Amino acid sequence: MPSDWSNDGRGAGRAAGRDLFVAPDVTGGRQAGLERALREAIRSGRLSAATRLPSSRALAADLGWARGTVAGAYGQLVAEGWLSARAGAGTVVAADQRRAAGSPPPAEAPAPRAPRYDLRAGNPDVGSFPRAAWAAALRRVLRDAPDEALRLGDPRGRLELRRALAAYLGRARGVAAAPERIVVCSGFTQALGLLAAVTSGAVAMEDPCLAVHREVVRAAGLPIVPLPVDEGGARVEHADGAAAAVVTPAHQVALGHTLAPERRARLVEWARATGGVVLEDDYDGEFRYDRQPVGALQALAPEHVAYAGTASKALAPALRLAWLVLPERLVEPVVEAKRLADHASPALEQLALADFVESGELDRHLRRARARYRRRRDALLTALAERAPAVEVLGIAAGLHVTLALPPGAPPEAEIRAAAAQRALALTGLARFWHDPAGRPPHLLLGYATPPDHAFAGAVERLASLLGDLMPAASRGS
Amino acid sequence: MPSDWSNDGRGAGRAAGRDLFVAPDVTGGRQAGLERALREAIRSGRLSAATRLPSSRALAADLGWARGTVAGAYGQLVAEGWLSARAGAGTVVAADQRRAAGSPPPAEAPAPRAPRYDLRAGNPDVGSFPRAAWAAALRRVLRDAPDEALRLGDPRGRLELRRALAAYLGRARGVAAAPERIVVCSGFTQALGLLAAVTSGAVAMEDPCLAVHREVVRAAGLPIVPLPVDEGGARVEHADGAAAAVVTPAHQVALGHTLAPERRARLVEWARATGGVVLEDDYDGEFRYDRQPVGALQALAPEHVAYAGTASKALAPALRLAWLVLPERLVEPVVEAKRLADHASPALEQLALADFVESGELDRHLRRARARYRRRRDALLTALAERAPAVEVLGIAAGLHVTLALPPGAPPEAEIRAAAAQRALALTGLARFWHDPAGRPPHLLLGYATPPDHAFAGAVERLASLLGDLMPAASRGS
Repeated sequence: MPSDWSNDGRGAGRAAGRDLFVAPDVTGGRQAGLERALREAIRSGRLSAATRLPSSRALAADLGWARGTVAGAYGQLVAEGWLSARAGAGTVVAADQRRAAGSPPPAEAPAPRAPRYDLRAGNPDVGSFPRAAWAAALRRVLRDAPDEALRLGDPRGRLELRRALAAYLGRARGVAAAPERIVVCSGFTQALGLLAAVTSGAVAMEDPCLAVHREVVRAAGLPIVPLPVDEGGARVEHADGAAAAVVTPAHQVALGHTLAPERRARLVEWARATGGVVLEDDYDGEFRYDRQPVGALQALAPEHVAYAGTASKALAPALRLAWLVLPERLVEPVVEAKRLADHASPALEQLALADFVESGELDRHLRRARARYRRRRDALLTALAERAPAVEVLGIAAGLHVTLALPPGAPPEAEIRAAAAQRALALTGLARFWHDPAGRPPHLLLGYATPPDHAFAGAVERLASLLGDLMPAASRGS
Repeated sequence: MPSDWSNDGRGAGRAAGRDLFVAPDVTGGRQAGLERALREAIRSGRLSAATRLPSSRALAADLGWARGTVAGAYGQLVAEGWLSARAGAGTVVAADQRRAAGSPPPAEAPAPRAPRYDLRAGNPDVGSFPRAAWAAALRRVLRDAPDEALRLGDPRGRLELRRALAAYLGRARGVAAAPERIVVCSGFTQALGLLAAVTSGAVAMEDPCLAVHREVVRAAGLPIVPLPVDEGGARVEHADGAAAAVVTPAHQVALGHTLAPERRARLVEWARATGGVVLEDDYDGEFRYDRQPVGALQALAPEHVAYAGTASKALAPALRLAWLVLPERLVEPVVEAKRLADHASPALEQLALADFVESGELDRHLRRARARYRRRRDALLTALAERAPAVEVLGIAAGLHVTLALPPGAPPEAEIRAAAAQRALALTGLARFWHDPAGRPPHLLLGYATPPDHAFAGAVERLASLLGDLMPAASRGS
């Protein structure tokens, strides 16, 4: 294994006290037994190339042997080429001495190369993640957190974070939240899974929606009722008969519409009348570019709507930090489901997020990001208006993506995406979002937050040029 | 909400750009509309006490209003006592102005006070968590990790960590591991849940074992077959008919025995013959106090044994970092179950652990911890031998706890624990570990790693004195 992973020049000479599992058969003598055991461990791949062994002194102490016995075995294996000894680097398994008796484990394929121009939907600009501020928050957490925070904690999550979120969600998103109604979880995926785990009956889901969300609900054994989506958002009247309805009111996850006020009211009525649960996925709720933000649906009926938010767009998806604000009757069953899923989410990053929220760092980051994404959106809309005017652009008021409804005569999504790939441009089609993609007109989801700053203009240019080439002649720029 | 959470003196004067969701009805004028909306938000508890509002300039800009309109509304609400304005601290919701129209959300009960002397099993000494080294690893990660690490990643976990773990587990635990066979997950709880999700049929589980592990298996809809435990560990012949068997070979989770060599062989034969899966919970595998560590069972049959390890004892349970090393046929289904559970575990702490392992920091920490825990164990055994010689002490060779088998005539566990609580001493009984606790003789699990260093001697003294008082007269110290 090449030791290509940041070592900061440490390691050399500091590896004396390393654990080595070795159980030599000493019937022919200790040194010979140790040599055989090490040869076999290297041959089988258990000790991989470049693995540093403990010093002969340390291993001898662990085995209760004389140091010379271990040093003799190491010397013999160095002479045979199994090990190599470098001054200051200790004794390591030699790079070319892995002679697998069986088949060696296949080298893992390298991750697919990131496309040069990436307008796929679903990620914020991770290049603007506030690394230094997050590191500082983690440093404060590790300095100040009580020891108790390092133990197995409350399945609901750290109280510090739940308090900070209750205040933040009330202020910034209009959510009626209290710390004891909040369960911190690992991304919206887990939030949905926990809700599904406590639901009996069909789940109404927007059509289109994220395919993985349907898979989560299906994996819980629940049937799905599609909710068609139009310019007023989900057509909630189709939820009749379902036990739960999952909606993205702020910015419909695929088409970008905002759920209309009368549909919000109707959905809440449905929940009140039937005892059904609404799961509000506050997708992109933080990113609204016109003046009036849309408040959370949850505030209309906190006892019927479970609110879900995440740090995935506001900060980074890799944090896997999300939160549910629950109706009282769901708190206990969801907490129990969380406890059986993974006991609780990791504590230190919860505390870092609490620090981030309380210090106002999250607000500052969001306001900077909002201004930057708005500029990107405007640049994208300008380019589309000039270069592909026949394309209808949906969902521009909020979120990190817009959706293109392609004109009649446009090629199918797969063909457009393949042509884009030829130009080093990655795009998201809508096909996988539909419950049944057959016969759906082609759409593209353009995640304008995805590229790093330096690649954004290039990505827009590639896209405009691609659409100019691919759209039917009649619909090209006027 | 008292702002008691570490602010480092930041905040004041930096809160100008904070998001505030407010949707005033302006039919009677903007200022009056804003005043009504803010009063209602405070009255309902949505804006909680001590919440800082944006500056009048920032809110005016967000609303597209003149600053004076917002400043006028703020001034009026300060005069009415809803808000308070302090030089340098901005405008905050006044502490005593929360007049809930409905019932206010109940204040969350404070966490139960930690017992003064804690010998409960299940936690390492979190007081010795290497905070500075972990913070340094996180700082390096945040400095060096590629942006791609902040996006949604491979459900198997970060390749850097899987590489580091493959080398480490091979070297230190004798596991036959390759990065592509590893799935990083959130604690052993999730590891077990993922295995259960891909299992059809009964699961053989040690009796006694952790109650929560039975609950996880039951929640997956699988029946449980108890495996009785004796001094040779689990009696694996009882697994016949099961589809999977969960065992703790290194240190039986409740009674502390090591799985005997002939039982290891027999369990592997069972798996080979029936196609059953063995889940090896390498519980306390890092903490062995005699000279010969016991290698992982997995190495005997990597295509039949799934190996599970965690950072919970080696570092801290709150990290929720665990790993499965899987037979090839289970990799794809388990990865899919992980993807649907929470997509992937959080990335930054995975990278920090990779750094920790590669730099040898984990080995150093473990070797220091092992020496310290061994001294604690010895002190505990000495005290028990002197003060409660009739008590049989099990599982002393490894792990972070010993188990006391109490002599005939001892009071029931619940009584002993209640008497201990009177002396500010917390103990773990074995009752909840049994599949059926009825008629089981009383045992105590003593987690000698749990207390901080300064409380350890006191805890042992309380325990010895308690046992001296409670054990039947005939069995007290000779």
